[in-house]
Amino acid sequence: MSKRVDEIGEFNLIDRITRFLPSTPMVLEGVGDDCAVLRVFDHHLLVSCDFSVEGTHFTRDTAQPEDIGWKVAAASLSDIAAMGGSPLFSLVSLSCPGSLEVAYLEKLYQGLSNLLSRFGVVVVGGDTTRSEALIGIDVTVIGEASGNRFLRRRGAQVGDVLAITGRPGMSGAGLHALQHGHEAPALTAAHLRPKPRILEGLWLSTRPNAHAMLDVSDGLFQDAGHLARPGHLGIDIHPKSLPIAPELTEYAEAHGLDPIRLALTGGEDFELLFALDANTSEETLDAFRQEFRTPITVIGAFTDEWTGVRLAGEEAEAGGFDQFLSGLSD
Amino acid sequence: MSKRVDEIGEFNLIDRITRFLPSTPMVLEGVGDDCAVLRVFDHHLLVSCDFSVEGTHFTRDTAQPEDIGWKVAAASLSDIAAMGGSPLFSLVSLSCPGSLEVAYLEKLYQGLSNLLSRFGVVVVGGDTTRSEALIGIDVTVIGEASGNRFLRRRGAQVGDVLAITGRPGMSGAGLHALQHGHEAPALTAAHLRPKPRILEGLWLSTRPNAHAMLDVSDGLFQDAGHLARPGHLGIDIHPKSLPIAPELTEYAEAHGLDPIRLALTGGEDFELLFALDANTSEETLDAFRQEFRTPITVIGAFTDEWTGVRLAGEEAEAGGFDQFLSGLSD
Repeated sequence: MSKRVDEIGEFNLIDRITRFLPSTPMVLEGVGDDCAVLRVFDHHLLVSCDFSVEGTHFTRDTAQPEDIGWKVAAASLSDIAAMGGSPLFSLVSLSCPGSLEVAYLEKLYQGLSNLLSRFGVVVVGGDTTRSEALIGIDVTVIGEASGNRFLRRRGAQVGDVLAITGRPGMSGAGLHALQHGHEAPALTAAHLRPKPRILEGLWLSTRPNAHAMLDVSDGLFQDAGHLARPGHLGIDIHPKSLPIAPELTEYAEAHGLDPIRLALTGGEDFELLFALDANTSEETLDAFRQEFRTPITVIGAFTDEWTGVRLAGEEAEAGGFDQFLSGLSD
Repeated sequence: MSKRVDEIGEFNLIDRITRFLPSTPMVLEGVGDDCAVLRVFDHHLLVSCDFSVEGTHFTRDTAQPEDIGWKVAAASLSDIAAMGGSPLFSLVSLSCPGSLEVAYLEKLYQGLSNLLSRFGVVVVGGDTTRSEALIGIDVTVIGEASGNRFLRRRGAQVGDVLAITGRPGMSGAGLHALQHGHEAPALTAAHLRPKPRILEGLWLSTRPNAHAMLDVSDGLFQDAGHLARPGHLGIDIHPKSLPIAPELTEYAEAHGLDPIRLALTGGEDFELLFALDANTSEETLDAFRQEFRTPITVIGAFTDEWTGVRLAGEEAEAGGFDQFLSGLSD
């Protein structure tokens, strides 16, 4: 009896369906990192796509069409940011019911284009097709690694610190607010209009003491596990160091939620999580703060005392957002 | 009152949602041709995607999962073939219900990989996500234009002949057979396992007397209109010259269908339709036949006596396959 997709989860599924696929030396990074890195014409091309489906990633009740377009573009751009790349081009594939109003799609494309054009990204193609029921949007972004330099998920070393941009958990709390009809403008904006950290990622990729990076999409705790190089390294996250936004604290208090848990598991933060050499990290953080207004915070350290991710040295079971296994774990 | 998507059709929809998008000189061909052509690192990159949705492009009743994977890969590869490019990499985005069996998806990926690997194309990334009801697959293919040479849709000249590879109409008849439960193996194979004309396209793109090309996906008659450079040129298709497969003739006779109409409007042929200088076309066709077993046939000519597409000089109203407006016109 074959297993169902929702019994094995997204990562096992990807492993099952891609394990027999061939590769070539032109592929520097293939399936498994935030985006593919391809050696083309002696340069490094970055390619990523992000597929958003109505009912799973958004609903027409809680998001305006401009928000939906913005967010799917943000998710795909964030994968380029996670490698430290510069986005160049985009392809947009869209399915929708024939009964949808054209004006609705125009607004969706406007949201998408508004974000893409902030980074000079040009939509060069795509596909439009009818679907019986739901809107689906797949955004492919093609970029380049400047100077052929990019940051992988693997590469963290014992003694590195773990640092993060921005304030995780706001997007997860924003989703909670939208689902429960609560007023929380800063949080719902974080959920509906996330900011891909393109410039920050590009800057970090040029620091020789930055060893590994990814973007937080499934929840900080779960995604940190990818930096721990499963089976090789441990990470200790210091919950007290987590940069919790005042709006998140306030919202959590008002609604009986744990802000730390939201920051660790909320998902869709699209912040950059990275490993920095501990000896030189302070300099780098200072230089970052000179350059950007985006917060940057050390929230933990890499260790060889255990493998996997712990909270203040204690084992923890903090779920993340797996589209196939569950919704937001809260 | 805003119009609905199914009131304006796919081409008007694309125009509406893309008209305000910016471009850059790096984009040699953007939205509107078979695939995008990008100037990257002084080379020409080709990018295309094709989105297939259950219920619109396939049903689990009439296609095996291997067929579904094969066909969506074929559609995307065919766009690269239409420019005369070489495919290199692919990204596969997939949405499906959580209740789907993993083994089903494995077979779908195997069908996809079987075709891609025939052309040395490597799957380098993608996205998997849950959808409440339907399977959706978006396949992006990245390729290159060898020697920076490629064929656009525009470029046909008065005096050119119109030629086509293969035998159009078999796929459309195959769909008819599947929908009506008729036995017609050659036709259903043409529908379920189309062959993208990658090598043929590459060869044609190196002929200086080939002026314009596309792949037939919406029906020969409708797609020919794109080569006529709307408002500029006329095309005269000679129905008697159409290369009708014996299996198509036989099937049409048995079921009261018109084989010529099927060849003109069937859709999803994925054959190459192109403009060749009339003075040197015979030489090129002979050389093609030396190289390939794929049929190649002159089926019409370009003219400045009218604009648009006619059949043996007569105006005709032959519908094509527009996903939003209708199904197969038959």
